[in-house]
Amino acid sequence: MPTILGQNQYGKAENRVVKITRDGDTHHIKDLNVSVALSGDLDDVHYNGSNANCLPTDTTKNTCFAFAKEYGIESAEQYGIHLARHFVDSQPSIHRARIRIEEYSWERIGGSDSNSKFIGADEVKHSFVRKGQETRLAQITYDGENFEVLSGLKDLTVMNSTNSEFWGYIKDKYTTLQEDYDRILATSLSTWWRHNWTNDEQRMPSWERSYEQAKKHILHAFVETYSLSLQQTLYQMGSRVINNRSEIDEIRFSAPNKHHFRQDLSPFGLDNAAKDGAVYYAADRPYGLIEATILRDGVEPKIPVDMTNL
Amino acid sequence: MPTILGQNQYGKAENRVVKITRDGDTHHIKDLNVSVALSGDLDDVHYNGSNANCLPTDTTKNTCFAFAKEYGIESAEQYGIHLARHFVDSQPSIHRARIRIEEYSWERIGGSDSNSKFIGADEVKHSFVRKGQETRLAQITYDGENFEVLSGLKDLTVMNSTNSEFWGYIKDKYTTLQEDYDRILATSLSTWWRHNWTNDEQRMPSWERSYEQAKKHILHAFVETYSLSLQQTLYQMGSRVINNRSEIDEIRFSAPNKHHFRQDLSPFGLDNAAKDGAVYYAADRPYGLIEATILRDGVEPKIPVDMTNL
Amino acid sequence: MPTILGQNQYGKAENRVVKITRDGDTHHIKDLNVSVALSGDLDDVHYNGSNANCLPTDTTKNTCFAFAKEYGIESAEQYGIHLARHFVDSQPSIHRARIRIEEYSWERIGGSDSNSKFIGADEVKHSFVRKGQETRLAQITYDGENFEVLSGLKDLTVMNSTNSEFWGYIKDKYTTLQEDYDRILATSLSTWWRHNWTNDEQRMPSWERSYEQAKKHILHAFVETYSLSLQQTLYQMGSRVINNRSEIDEIRFSAPNKHHFRQDLSPFGLDNAAKDGAVYYAADRPYGLIEATILRDGVEPKIPVDMTNL
Amino acid sequence: MPTILGQNQYGKAENRVVKITRDGDTHHIKDLNVSVALSGDLDDVHYNGSNANCLPTDTTKNTCFAFAKEYGIESAEQYGIHLARHFVDSQPSIHRARIRIEEYSWERIGGSDSNSKFIGADEVKHSFVRKGQETRLAQITYDGENFEVLSGLKDLTVMNSTNSEFWGYIKDKYTTLQEDYDRILATSLSTWWRHNWTNDEQRMPSWERSYEQAKKHILHAFVETYSLSLQQTLYQMGSRVINNRSEIDEIRFSAPNKHHFRQDLSPFGLDNAAKDGAVYYAADRPYGLIEATILRDGVEPKIPVDMTNL
Repeated sequence: MPTILGQNQYGKAENRVVKITRDGDTHHIKDLNVSVALSGDLDDVHYNGSNANCLPTDTTKNTCFAFAKEYGIESAEQYGIHLARHFVDSQPSIHRARIRIEEYSWERIGGSDSNSKFIGADEVKHSFVRKGQETRLAQITYDGENFEVLSGLKDLTVMNSTNSEFWGYIKDKYTTLQEDYDRILATSLSTWWRHNWTNDEQRMPSWERSYEQAKKHILHAFVETYSLSLQQTLYQMGSRVINNRSEIDEIRFSAPNKHHFRQDLSPFGLDNAAKDGAVYYAADRPYGLIEATILRDGVEPKIPVDMTNL
Repeated sequence: MPTILGQNQYGKAENRVVKITRDGDTHHIKDLNVSVALSGDLDDVHYNGSNANCLPTDTTKNTCFAFAKEYGIESAEQYGIHLARHFVDSQPSIHRARIRIEEYSWERIGGSDSNSKFIGADEVKHSFVRKGQETRLAQITYDGENFEVLSGLKDLTVMNSTNSEFWGYIKDKYTTLQEDYDRILATSLSTWWRHNWTNDEQRMPSWERSYEQAKKHILHAFVETYSLSLQQTLYQMGSRVINNRSEIDEIRFSAPNKHHFRQDLSPFGLDNAAKDGAVYYAADRPYGLIEATILRDGVEPKIPVDMTNL
Repeated sequence: MPTILGQNQYGKAENRVVKITRDGDTHHIKDLNVSVALSGDLDDVHYNGSNANCLPTDTTKNTCFAFAKEYGIESAEQYGIHLARHFVDSQPSIHRARIRIEEYSWERIGGSDSNSKFIGADEVKHSFVRKGQETRLAQITYDGENFEVLSGLKDLTVMNSTNSEFWGYIKDKYTTLQEDYDRILATSLSTWWRHNWTNDEQRMPSWERSYEQAKKHILHAFVETYSLSLQQTLYQMGSRVINNRSEIDEIRFSAPNKHHFRQDLSPFGLDNAAKDGAVYYAADRPYGLIEATILRDGVEPKIPVDMTNL
Repeated sequence: MPTILGQNQYGKAENRVVKITRDGDTHHIKDLNVSVALSGDLDDVHYNGSNANCLPTDTTKNTCFAFAKEYGIESAEQYGIHLARHFVDSQPSIHRARIRIEEYSWERIGGSDSNSKFIGADEVKHSFVRKGQETRLAQITYDGENFEVLSGLKDLTVMNSTNSEFWGYIKDKYTTLQEDYDRILATSLSTWWRHNWTNDEQRMPSWERSYEQAKKHILHAFVETYSLSLQQTLYQMGSRVINNRSEIDEIRFSAPNKHHFRQDLSPFGLDNAAKDGAVYYAADRPYGLIEATILRDGVEPKIPVDMTNL
């Protein structure tokens, strides 16, 4: 046979699982988008359409909803570990399961927002507003022996309106960019980080706390870095996470440079210097795209380098 | 001539104007998406391509950026009033200007979010994270004599996880829906409200405070209404705004019912009753779409009824 | 009561109805996205949540699917007329129904595309590729006596790579644009046109043929107009439709100017004149947005002027 | 140092390069979205913000536009080879360049569409309509010695309205799916294939013809395969490309199962069997996602397995 089958995987993608937990009158939400990808003894499905080894994608969907009820959703990671283990351990033909989860945050109405602060906000027990900031990510892979757990986030848009410069770069024939000693640095962060927990013999991290702390370190590094390049800022973010969180060994960033160009107002007799508070044009495309992995020294990188298709 | 020209308008849409204001070391952001639409003596442009009466859309773009520098952006509404007045009063051929503005909110990193609360958050002077919740809206129209100012918002996604019922409706040949006495009510609100300020002889409202208060009343009505239909909830929101804010005469809502259907888990021997905390499937399409205007008694409605194309 | 209810409507939006018709071995597809909006005696639903006059949105969904089976889908317009008539005529509390439809085109694989032309393409009886060009639109409104039928399209992206100029416009303090005697004219057309058929006493147009012809006239006018402004091109398109199609009385366009700016390559010693075949930068935002109605002389305009929210 | 830098890359993404070629009065378009990613001696940029080895992303943008003028765009692949070679060969600090290109197709107005067929279509020399079907893809990677050239496409939506079955699969505790002997099979194909050309010592393929032929074989396999699983159809597509195109060694597919579920119309007394021409509900989420690589026997797979983030 001149052609052969290589890597393959299948499952139901984007199951929108929402779980309400009632603690007396007080409700809590977990709002997830769950995607399943299974691999194993699936040559026959491809070569001749025999589905004898194929658990239908519809069944993987049903399992996502049923497990949310049977086991609850303590965290996206914990729930994904349950699901991945189930598919591999219960089906002889399935040797590897990967669960990818997007999590959307909700907050109680009137909770943190001082403008709409509720008189008697403690009384808001089942009314929520979608937070709308970053989407939290988790990916759990299980091969029958070990787990790999990635956590992460996307669409966290941050800006430093000063304390960013860009100069001293290569000038070739096609270089027209002017050096800038006071520019806006803004990006919409996507990042995955890898935990070193791999199986039940190790103590499992607190996934919720780990996420909060990793995000906090990323934000603090963004605030505190006087930046000479977006690459420098990413490295500071990454090394701060690795140095402060012993459960995390590797982190990868994909960071589009959301350009804010100072508009040239000189034709209208207006000075538009950054130091006086300037007017900027927020550009869509093209944009610089900066990607980097930061690792604990000595560990092997495992997070795929491509987080976008661009 | 068998065909004639009817209503027409033109201008530059989606000018992404970002203004940083520096108050010592403390920076503030206004982040706007500004669209200009002009009407007037423009028959010749259409009939024979003579542009003698046409202010180029590129010029309207330049004006948006220049005005942000010259006059600052106190509020989207105030800035839009400046722009609309300028186009009509400075150009004999332009008789009507409409400025539509989307505003994106940013908050200081570590400010309100207790998880990432900054040690020394007072020191965060120029670092921001995009809030990501609702987009604020403003529309200013000027005809050379009077202004019409609409404010509003879109993409404010809210949920009550209980205290919503739906029953007692018409049953016809095509009705299969089961009555529900404990359902999730969720929607992604779009709304415009109209101010009764029309010219400088009246005292101008505080646009920022008016927005905060209108939003607060909408959210409070959502929290406090035990809902028998989404229509009832919208009416409560609207009447609360009209009754509490004397500067607002009319409000229109477009509210997709973001369905959360309880997943049927009975095939797996699982009970999934709402009262115990249920698992829901968040559906994309189709969705109920509920739209309504609420008015101060005696005023004439002016907000267009179509806020979507569906 | 200080606040009152104004215009309101509700229904199920975005029902994705796909109908396969089998003509022996040869299959045909109608692929629609159907949105229902009903109005009538609905004050109680808003004031106190009584649903006694409310046909559930879920029932309107069921009706869309059932009618596709019972009556087929001869055309989007014909199908929408059936639905609108049904809701108003069968429900005493419903006084007005509006059906909006998006239609997606499919073509037989290998049919028109010479590159993938099928050996034995006549044999392709049930294999389709989504055409992906414009989305066809229809809106049918019925008030119990008369119909209003709009047809239209959106996302038809066209380009003239020459025969477009822009000069002779107003120059004010904020004008920096250079006149251009050979520019690209490109737009992504959205348009609605109104038929003068209103009830069964008139002969009903052939909706499919009317659509094809209206689209053809729009495209031909685009090809044949040497353009001094996008407004002029729109007027030519509109008047050509009105003059050639007696069943159409009014047409409205919303046309973003999809700017293709000649890139300045002079810093690299390269001339980039249009006459030699130039390199252009396709810009996203901002963009000129040109909107206009063209009418048969003597008729009253009825198509809403706002086709976008910008 | 406890943390180290791993894989990193940077460049300008989404440069919208449009090239018009004039052949007398007849114009041709190449419409590309070009993304550059460079790697090399970039440790200092990350560790301390020194940009001495960093060619600015703005320069990579300028180069994309200048090369389109200097060398033209014979094909996306040929143009990408020029760019990749330039960045690595001209900059000592850059050791690897990856160029990713999306290409959008345009056709002459009135050309292939019989409905809008132009009287005198041969006269349509500079008027185009965007085709709107698949987006063509190319990725060129160069390490200073060898090239890797991937070609591909995305968003090619195809449907077989019969000749698809799904049965004989695993039934476990969570399986509720009914077997189906006459279902719709529809998908929106994304695919990358890898050429075995790696440097100038080999004869370079005709990239345009290779693309056309690969696409044709994919479509023909879709038409001709009586499908018992989407996996089977993908394998047929892939093996047909490998077997017929000696320049291609490997191909990967990512294929969401665009579910069209037969609507249950039995509550309304309507039979909705497939054999009679049925009404289907086109579902959005969740969806089966099927991914597979097909290889020439003996070659090593190199296309990354993840083409989506789900």
